[in-house]
Amino acid sequence: MNNLLTVQGRDMLVAKTSKKGGTCIEVKGCTIGGEQVVVVAGPCAVESEEILKETAFKVRGSGAAMLRGGAYKPRTSPYSFQGLGKQGLKILAKVGEEMNMPVVTEVMDSEDINLVAEYADVLQVGARNMHNFSLLRKLGKIEKPVILKRGLSATIEEWLLAAEYILAGGNSQVILCERGIRTSERWTRNTLDLSAVALVKELSHLPVMVDPSHGTGVRSLVVPMAKAAVGAGADGVMVEVHPNPEQALSDGQQSLTPRGFSLMMREIDPVARAVGRRIR
Amino acid sequence: MNNLLTVQGRDMLVAKTSKKGGTCIEVKGCTIGGEQVVVVAGPCAVESEEILKETAFKVRGSGAAMLRGGAYKPRTSPYSFQGLGKQGLKILAKVGEEMNMPVVTEVMDSEDINLVAEYADVLQVGARNMHNFSLLRKLGKIEKPVILKRGLSATIEEWLLAAEYILAGGNSQVILCERGIRTSERWTRNTLDLSAVALVKELSHLPVMVDPSHGTGVRSLVVPMAKAAVGAGADGVMVEVHPNPEQALSDGQQSLTPRGFSLMMREIDPVARAVGRRIR
Amino acid sequence: MNNLLTVQGRDMLVAKTSKKGGTCIEVKGCTIGGEQVVVVAGPCAVESEEILKETAFKVRGSGAAMLRGGAYKPRTSPYSFQGLGKQGLKILAKVGEEMNMPVVTEVMDSEDINLVAEYADVLQVGARNMHNFSLLRKLGKIEKPVILKRGLSATIEEWLLAAEYILAGGNSQVILCERGIRTSERWTRNTLDLSAVALVKELSHLPVMVDPSHGTGVRSLVVPMAKAAVGAGADGVMVEVHPNPEQALSDGQQSLTPRGFSLMMREIDPVARAVGRRIR
Amino acid sequence: MNNLLTVQGRDMLVAKTSKKGGTCIEVKGCTIGGEQVVVVAGPCAVESEEILKETAFKVRGSGAAMLRGGAYKPRTSPYSFQGLGKQGLKILAKVGEEMNMPVVTEVMDSEDINLVAEYADVLQVGARNMHNFSLLRKLGKIEKPVILKRGLSATIEEWLLAAEYILAGGNSQVILCERGIRTSERWTRNTLDLSAVALVKELSHLPVMVDPSHGTGVRSLVVPMAKAAVGAGADGVMVEVHPNPEQALSDGQQSLTPRGFSLMMREIDPVARAVGRRIR
Repeated sequence: MNNLLTVQGRDMLVAKTSKKGGTCIEVKGCTIGGEQVVVVAGPCAVESEEILKETAFKVRGSGAAMLRGGAYKPRTSPYSFQGLGKQGLKILAKVGEEMNMPVVTEVMDSEDINLVAEYADVLQVGARNMHNFSLLRKLGKIEKPVILKRGLSATIEEWLLAAEYILAGGNSQVILCERGIRTSERWTRNTLDLSAVALVKELSHLPVMVDPSHGTGVRSLVVPMAKAAVGAGADGVMVEVHPNPEQALSDGQQSLTPRGFSLMMREIDPVARAVGRRIR
Repeated sequence: MNNLLTVQGRDMLVAKTSKKGGTCIEVKGCTIGGEQVVVVAGPCAVESEEILKETAFKVRGSGAAMLRGGAYKPRTSPYSFQGLGKQGLKILAKVGEEMNMPVVTEVMDSEDINLVAEYADVLQVGARNMHNFSLLRKLGKIEKPVILKRGLSATIEEWLLAAEYILAGGNSQVILCERGIRTSERWTRNTLDLSAVALVKELSHLPVMVDPSHGTGVRSLVVPMAKAAVGAGADGVMVEVHPNPEQALSDGQQSLTPRGFSLMMREIDPVARAVGRRIR
Repeated sequence: MNNLLTVQGRDMLVAKTSKKGGTCIEVKGCTIGGEQVVVVAGPCAVESEEILKETAFKVRGSGAAMLRGGAYKPRTSPYSFQGLGKQGLKILAKVGEEMNMPVVTEVMDSEDINLVAEYADVLQVGARNMHNFSLLRKLGKIEKPVILKRGLSATIEEWLLAAEYILAGGNSQVILCERGIRTSERWTRNTLDLSAVALVKELSHLPVMVDPSHGTGVRSLVVPMAKAAVGAGADGVMVEVHPNPEQALSDGQQSLTPRGFSLMMREIDPVARAVGRRIR
Repeated sequence: MNNLLTVQGRDMLVAKTSKKGGTCIEVKGCTIGGEQVVVVAGPCAVESEEILKETAFKVRGSGAAMLRGGAYKPRTSPYSFQGLGKQGLKILAKVGEEMNMPVVTEVMDSEDINLVAEYADVLQVGARNMHNFSLLRKLGKIEKPVILKRGLSATIEEWLLAAEYILAGGNSQVILCERGIRTSERWTRNTLDLSAVALVKELSHLPVMVDPSHGTGVRSLVVPMAKAAVGAGADGVMVEVHPNPEQALSDGQQSLTPRGFSLMMREIDPVARAVGRRIR
């Protein structure tokens, strides 16, 4: 599979062969792509300062390295909760600072990049925008790390080429994130493709995370899939945590409680050690 | 299937039940959603004024109602031809005017909407942007028709909800376009889902087109699939035509020659009549 | 696509290039693969002689050429109705004879081939058995025509190779039948792939039918998809018809009423003429 | 997800709630479903006594608990190597006895069940026969364990219902085996769905294995996916091993060498311990 990532005889920028060693990305003292398996946790959406603070406090206590929370939410229906927007960004940045945790949030529109970059430490491109090449091209011009989720039915090749858009623009701080693809299976929301993790690690120098919350859509599957992801060699795990999943404005059925998250951390810790990594 | 398109007990704007009769969209004397099956033809990308003019002249002669051509091309690889941009828009508008054909082109970035709307008669949202909700929301604010292609693996529900974003913004001139979905089939580029046409006609008042060029990715399948689309009740057919497909900068293998297009028009004409429609 | 169906430099038996002209299959005066688009109709399962006779009488009156009905039913759950077995075969044969219609029924087990062949004029291999190579090999040894349905997620190549198993065994009377493949779409039971019809007609000399009942799983989509199938060049259409779909023991939601079937026949007739075929 | 496996208000036989504790299956001193993660290894097909013996000797030395090898091979093309049949069964049984390893092999035809059961300790139903209900029903009547692979695009529900066919027939010794499902991904042969493992462990008392060889189709992905499978909670791992993969008559590109297998065993051992299991 050596020639998969070449163009006109040259290695692409994402190709492992184009660079010595794996890419390590530093975010406020947290390193993604190093020995640590970085755990990113938080609610699907920023709903209020209180809820976010409570969540952050608890997940940090259990060992989460970074805080996630959506301010702009890509929702299938225009009538669903769309996120708090700029207010959400402010809350996220404030709580992150108070808790001393780097924060991750999604950017959906190329017009919002500067605004989001002002508040967030890491910008996320959601699965529905993986093929939004305009957005990718503009993210190549910023100096903040980008988490690039795999598209709903994107091939691994397309995903790496989407990353190439960002690298080609000049931003080499890209973290890939597998979050499941669409299949005909009905009992899970998506089919989490962990072979993508292994394949990316083989072909590229970029770090790769796994999101078992979206990847399964089922709370009880998050912990076993987090363990599997770490076993497969993931550099990070991103999960949704909400203090009261039943009342979450989005994705409640796949969110862990803080207690469930604490359990997850205890269970992935030995798996990380078994593959020569650590979670803190 | 009556309650599929409701939200909190109300009919959605896209629902057939929300409106009397089907939506007809007028573009410079051409009506989409009426008795005529509207045929949109042209090259994948605007490559030069000469090529476009030659194509337009020929497809118009065979009965095409509208001219298509991409100025901004969503390409999987950042190293592929990305379209001529603003220059492409100008060429398209000029040729359209000379040939007296309304023109359709894709918009990829919400920042480009005004520019594209200045030159194009109909704006197209490509499959890769069907879930770009920011773009959809802004297209709800313009006064030009929008062709909304179905996403690579979007469900029919998600597609109609994407249209709802545009309608909810105030723009009711939306034309849906089925262009195939991803499956495990390898001999075709996508699997053209013509049941989606029948289902949309049953559930919604919006007109729906079919793109058998992207839907199959194989030139020899375009004509039979165009006939099938008309048989299924499509309000329009959009196909790629290039005077010299082997030299096309993109999608050559699925482009008809002008002669192949002429044949297609002769073959779909009796099918259109058989289902009570006409192609001119 | 000329070399797709070769093996070690030789054309496969299914390849168009291996034979002069298309294969026509004669069944008691009915020709499949000729000018006529052959319509096969009947209930999903043989439930009783009365119901079958009533159905047969009506579909024959509307122009159906052959009668279908399952005696052995491949059911996902062991607790669902599994068909009447041998008794069902007898009823089917009896009604077929009385109505002077050739009969089609499914064989699920290689041990049952002789029994089924005794009663049926055409043996059907269901989608779930398309990869049952033992069954296929044994069907190569009989002298009755076989309808080979495409597997649930089979590629067109695999489907043609499944046919090759039967031809290689010595039985060249194979009729392919597209019945939809699995995708992530939720509002239809399967995604009917009509491009498969066009592709098979291009690559093979074998006749190909379409089953829009299983292909969509939705009664209201059967008629438009039957028209699309005929437009795409199908040599036959197979549909489920039940006098009282709500009380059918299987597949009621996708079965036409006899009246709906009569409407279908009226609507596909002009489409068949438009593509140079006829339905009676 | 508690009511997913009920029928008419009763728990199905496969449902966790229908039985106290997980099912443990004993095969000649080897227990599947207990503390040990059982590793099954061997060539795709039995090619000769020598090759099989060499493979068995080496995989046993590295810790494999059981030996696999196909005598009847389900091949897409009738012109591919179809297995040695009865001779293959004899070789397999002989080598298994010499090496003191229980042997697993596939049965493709209900007529062969007795013959295969005479030689094999465990009978395997391949993915292509998961929906061969006749075969399943007859496997319900034997007294040997059955490994039931998930179908090419089967849902988890259909897979469990296929197992229910066997249990309903009276044979409760069923081992499920996830082997990847078909998706639109091109760089892997299938998409290995490890969430299926976690879901089966949650819903059913049956043991579940993972086959990362077929699940990925890529040799270099087998080891990371085996680690992931163990992390996810699999009760066993089944892999293809061939002393000379380049010369294997089938599936060479996904077969481990004996040395690669030995490495895999060293790498999954600590992961097994991390989740409270062991591999020997």
